[in-house]
Amino acid sequence: MTWLDFQNRFQKIRDNKVFELFVIFVIIFSSLMIGIRTYELPGLVETILVSLDYAVTLFFVMEISIRMAAESRFRDFFKKGWNIFDFVIVVVSLIPLDDSEYALIARMLRLFRVMRLISFIPELRVLVSALISALPRMGYVALLMFIIFYLYAVIGNMLYAQLNPVLWGDLGVSLLTLFRVATFEDWTDVMYEAMTLYGLSWIYFISFIFFSAFVFLNMMIGIVVEVLDEEHKKMEAENNRAQEVEELVAIQNHEQKMETEIALLHQKLDALLAQQSNK
Amino acid sequence: MTWLDFQNRFQKIRDNKVFELFVIFVIIFSSLMIGIRTYELPGLVETILVSLDYAVTLFFVMEISIRMAAESRFRDFFKKGWNIFDFVIVVVSLIPLDDSEYALIARMLRLFRVMRLISFIPELRVLVSALISALPRMGYVALLMFIIFYLYAVIGNMLYAQLNPVLWGDLGVSLLTLFRVATFEDWTDVMYEAMTLYGLSWIYFISFIFFSAFVFLNMMIGIVVEVLDEEHKKMEAENNRAQEVEELVAIQNHEQKMETEIALLHQKLDALLAQQSNK
Amino acid sequence: MTWLDFQNRFQKIRDNKVFELFVIFVIIFSSLMIGIRTYELPGLVETILVSLDYAVTLFFVMEISIRMAAESRFRDFFKKGWNIFDFVIVVVSLIPLDDSEYALIARMLRLFRVMRLISFIPELRVLVSALISALPRMGYVALLMFIIFYLYAVIGNMLYAQLNPVLWGDLGVSLLTLFRVATFEDWTDVMYEAMTLYGLSWIYFISFIFFSAFVFLNMMIGIVVEVLDEEHKKMEAENNRAQEVEELVAIQNHEQKMETEIALLHQKLDALLAQQSNK
Amino acid sequence: MTWLDFQNRFQKIRDNKVFELFVIFVIIFSSLMIGIRTYELPGLVETILVSLDYAVTLFFVMEISIRMAAESRFRDFFKKGWNIFDFVIVVVSLIPLDDSEYALIARMLRLFRVMRLISFIPELRVLVSALISALPRMGYVALLMFIIFYLYAVIGNMLYAQLNPVLWGDLGVSLLTLFRVATFEDWTDVMYEAMTLYGLSWIYFISFIFFSAFVFLNMMIGIVVEVLDEEHKKMEAENNRAQEVEELVAIQNHEQKMETEIALLHQKLDALLAQQSNK
Repeated sequence: MTWLDFQNRFQKIRDNKVFELFVIFVIIFSSLMIGIRTYELPGLVETILVSLDYAVTLFFVMEISIRMAAESRFRDFFKKGWNIFDFVIVVVSLIPLDDSEYALIARMLRLFRVMRLISFIPELRVLVSALISALPRMGYVALLMFIIFYLYAVIGNMLYAQLNPVLWGDLGVSLLTLFRVATFEDWTDVMYEAMTLYGLSWIYFISFIFFSAFVFLNMMIGIVVEVLDEEHKKMEAENNRAQEVEELVAIQNHEQKMETEIALLHQKLDALLAQQSNK
Repeated sequence: MTWLDFQNRFQKIRDNKVFELFVIFVIIFSSLMIGIRTYELPGLVETILVSLDYAVTLFFVMEISIRMAAESRFRDFFKKGWNIFDFVIVVVSLIPLDDSEYALIARMLRLFRVMRLISFIPELRVLVSALISALPRMGYVALLMFIIFYLYAVIGNMLYAQLNPVLWGDLGVSLLTLFRVATFEDWTDVMYEAMTLYGLSWIYFISFIFFSAFVFLNMMIGIVVEVLDEEHKKMEAENNRAQEVEELVAIQNHEQKMETEIALLHQKLDALLAQQSNK
Repeated sequence: MTWLDFQNRFQKIRDNKVFELFVIFVIIFSSLMIGIRTYELPGLVETILVSLDYAVTLFFVMEISIRMAAESRFRDFFKKGWNIFDFVIVVVSLIPLDDSEYALIARMLRLFRVMRLISFIPELRVLVSALISALPRMGYVALLMFIIFYLYAVIGNMLYAQLNPVLWGDLGVSLLTLFRVATFEDWTDVMYEAMTLYGLSWIYFISFIFFSAFVFLNMMIGIVVEVLDEEHKKMEAENNRAQEVEELVAIQNHEQKMETEIALLHQKLDALLAQQSNK
Repeated sequence: MTWLDFQNRFQKIRDNKVFELFVIFVIIFSSLMIGIRTYELPGLVETILVSLDYAVTLFFVMEISIRMAAESRFRDFFKKGWNIFDFVIVVVSLIPLDDSEYALIARMLRLFRVMRLISFIPELRVLVSALISALPRMGYVALLMFIIFYLYAVIGNMLYAQLNPVLWGDLGVSLLTLFRVATFEDWTDVMYEAMTLYGLSWIYFISFIFFSAFVFLNMMIGIVVEVLDEEHKKMEAENNRAQEVEELVAIQNHEQKMETEIALLHQKLDALLAQQSNK
C-alpha cells in the first residue's frame, strides 16, 4: 500500500460528514468540560474530566494529523489561514504546563479550543472574515477618536490629577476614566467631583461627550452608507442589468437583420438599374 | 335543524364585526382586571373581580368553542398556529389551581390572556410573525456572541473567582457579570475591583467591551443592509421594470412590423425583377 | 377709511420681514427672561422683569390680533393648526393667576411661549410635522412593547411585591421599575435583590431585556427601511425614469419616421409595378 | 542665487515624501512626549524632555516657514483653512508662558500640536471636513432638542428647586441634570427623590425621556436617509446610466444608418421611375 493510498483514505475520512460532525461534537464537549470545571465538583468527577481532557487533546492531535496527511503537498495545509489557526490552537494546548506554576495559563490555552468552533462552522468563518474586513473601514475614524481621547486625557490629567489621582493620575488612568465617561457609566460622579475644583468643569465633560458621540454616530452612519452603497453597486450591476441588456441585445440583433435585408434590397435595385440601363 | 345550520350560524357569529370587537373588549377588560388586582382593594371589589374572572373564563371557553364549531372540519381549526396559541391559553387558564398552593402560577397562567390581543389584532399578528422571521437571521451572530461571552466568562472565572465569588464564582454568574458589563451597568466598579488583584485587568474589560460592541454593531448594520437589499430587489423587480419593459416591447413590436414591411418590399422587387427578365 | 383698508394694512404688517424678525426676537427674549428668573436676582431686576413680562404679554396679544384682523374672513385664522396653537398659548398666558396660590402654574403657562419659536420658524414647523407623522408608524410596535411591559410588570408584582414594595408594590411602580431596567439604569441592583428570593430571577430580567431590546431594535430597523423605501420610490419615479424615457421616446419617433419612409418606398414600387404592367 | 531659486528649493523640500513623513514623526513624537510627562519621571528625563520640547517648537517654526516661503505669493498660504489651522497652532505654542503662573495654559496650548496630525494626514482632513459639513444638517433638530431641554429645565427648576438646589437650583444646573437623565445616568435616583415631593413626578421624567429619545432617534434616521439619498442620486446619475446610455446610443446610431440606407433606396427607385417615364 503506497503513500497515495493512505492519502486517499485520509482525504475520505476528512471529507466524511460523520467525521466532521463528530469533530464539532468533541469541540463542543471539550468547551462544556471547561465550563463545568468552573463549578465545585466531587473529586471523582474532577478525575474523570482530567482524563477526558487528555483524550480530547489526543483526538485533536489525531484529527489535525489526518487533515495534514490528506493534503497532496504538506505545505498546502499551511496555505489556508484557518488551518494555521487550528494548528496553533492544537499545538499550544500540548505544552505540558499543568503541574507547573503556570497551570492557569495552561487551562486558558486549552480554553481557546472553543474558538475551533469558528474555524469548523463555515457560516461562522464567513462571519468572522466579514468582521475582519470591516476593520480597515473604521481605521481613520478610530484614529480620530483616539486623538480626541488623547487630547482630553492629557487635559484631564493637567486639571484634575491633584484632585483625584486614581481617576486622573496619569495618561493611562485618564484614558480609562474618559472611556468610562463615554459609556455614560457614573460619569456624573466624575463630573460633580471635578466641578468642586473648577466650576466650569462641565464644559470639559459635556464637550467630550458631544465630540465622541458625534464622531461615533457619524462613523456608524458612514459605515451603513458605505456598506449599502457597495451592495447596491453589486446588485445593480448584476441583477438589474441582466434582463434589460437581454432585451436591448434582442433589439440590436433585430436591427442587424433589418440592415442586411435593406442591403439585399439595394443589391436587387442595383440589378434592376443595371438591367434598365443595359436595355 | 341540522349540524350544518348550526355551523353556518356559528360562522356568522365568528365573522361578525361586533362579536370580534366584543372579544377584544373582554380581552382588554380581563387584562385590566389582572392589573387592578395588583393594587390593594376593598374586600367587596376583590370578590366582584373574582366572580368577573370566572365570567371571563367562561366567555373565553364559549368563544373558542364557537370558533371551533364554525370550522367545516374540526381539525382545520388546529391548522392555524394562532388558533393553537389561543386554544392553549384558554385551556391552561381552566386548570383549577386557585385554592391550592399553586395560586400564584394559576394567576400567571390567566395573565397570558393578555397575549390573546396579539392573536386577535391582525397588525400585531403580522408584526410578531415578522419578528420571529427575523430570528434566524441573527442565529450565527448570536452564536459568535455566545462564544465570546463563554471565552471571557471562563477566563474571568479563572482570574477573579478568588477575589469575588459573587461575581465570578462559576460560569453562570460570570456570564451574568459579563452581560452586566456589556450593558455598561456599573461596569467600572467590577473593573476597579478586578484591578486591585491584577493591574492589567482593564485589558480584559476594555477588550471584552470592544469585541462585544463591535460584533453587535456589525450585526445591526448587517441586518439593516440585508433587509434593505431584500426590499430593493422586490421593489425593483416589481416597480421599476414594469414601465420600461412596456416600452421595449413597443419598440420590438414596431421592429417586427417594419420587418414584414421590408419583406413585402422584397416580394415586390422580386416581382419587378421577374417581369424585367421575362421581357 | 374702510375695514378693507385696515385689513390691507394689517396684512402688510404681518407679512413684513422686519415685523416677523421682531416677533422672533420678542419670543426669544421672553424665553430668556423666564430662564433668567430661575437665578437669584436683586429686587430691582426682578421688578423690571415682571413689568417686561407684562409688556411681552401685551405685545403678543397685539401681534395675534393683527394676524387675526389680517385674515379676510375671521374664521380662516382658525383653519391652520399652528394658528390655534399660537392663539391658545397667548390666551392661556393671559389668565390672571399670579397673585393667587396658582402662581407656579401661571409661570408654567407663560413658559410655553418658548414653543411659539416652533410655530414661527418654518423649518421647525416642518420638522415637528414630520415627527408627528412618524408617530402612527410606531403605533403597533408601541402596543406590542406595552403588552410585553404589562405582562412582565404583573409577573414582577406577583413575584417580588413582598420583597420590595417600593419597586414592585403595584402595577404602576412595577412598570416604572421595568422602564428603569430597560434603560439599564442600575438594573443589576434590582436583579441581585430579586435573586436573593428566587435564585432563577435572572431569567426574568435577562429575558425581559432581550425581548424589549429585540422589539425596539426591530422597530428601529423597520422604520429606517420603511422611510428609505418611501424615499426611493419617490426618487426613482421622478429622477431615474426621466432621462431614460426621453431616449426611448426618441428611438420610437425614429422608428415611426422610418416606417413612413418604407411606406413611401412601397408606394413608389407599386407605381413602378403599375407602369411595368401597363407597358 | 535669486529668491525664485530659494522658493523652488523650498517647494522641493515641502513636497518631499521623506520630509512629510519626518514631520508626521515629529508630531507623533511631540504628542507622546506630552503624554509621557503625565507620569512621574526622574529629574534627568524631565530635563531632556523639556529641551526636546524646545527642539520640537523650533522644528515646527522652521517647517511652517519653509511651507510659507514655498508659496509663490505669500498670502496664498493663508487661503487654505488647514494652513491657518497649522499656523495658529505653531504660533500659539511660541508664547513664552512656561515660567509664569500660566504654565498650565502653556502646556495645554502645546498639546494642540497633536491636532496637527489631522491637518497632515489627508484622510483625516477629509473625515473632519465631512464631519463639519454634517453639522448644519443637525442644526434645526438641535434647536428643537434645545427647546425641549429648556422647557423641561425651567419646569424642573420651578418644581424641584426647593427640594434639591444642587440638581435644580437654577437653569444651568437643571439643564445639566436633564442631560444626565438623557444619558440614563442614575436618572432613577433623581426621579425617586423628586417623587418624594410630588407623587406624579414620574410623568415629568418619563415624558422627557420619551420626547428627547424620540427626537434624537428621528434625527438619526433622518440623517441616514438623507445621506443615503444623496449618495444614491450621485451613484445612479453616474454609474447606472453610463452603460445603458451607451447601448441606447448604439441603437440610435444604427437607426440613423438604416435611415440613410432607406434614403438611398428612395434615390435609386426615383432614378428607376425617372428612367421608366423617360422611355
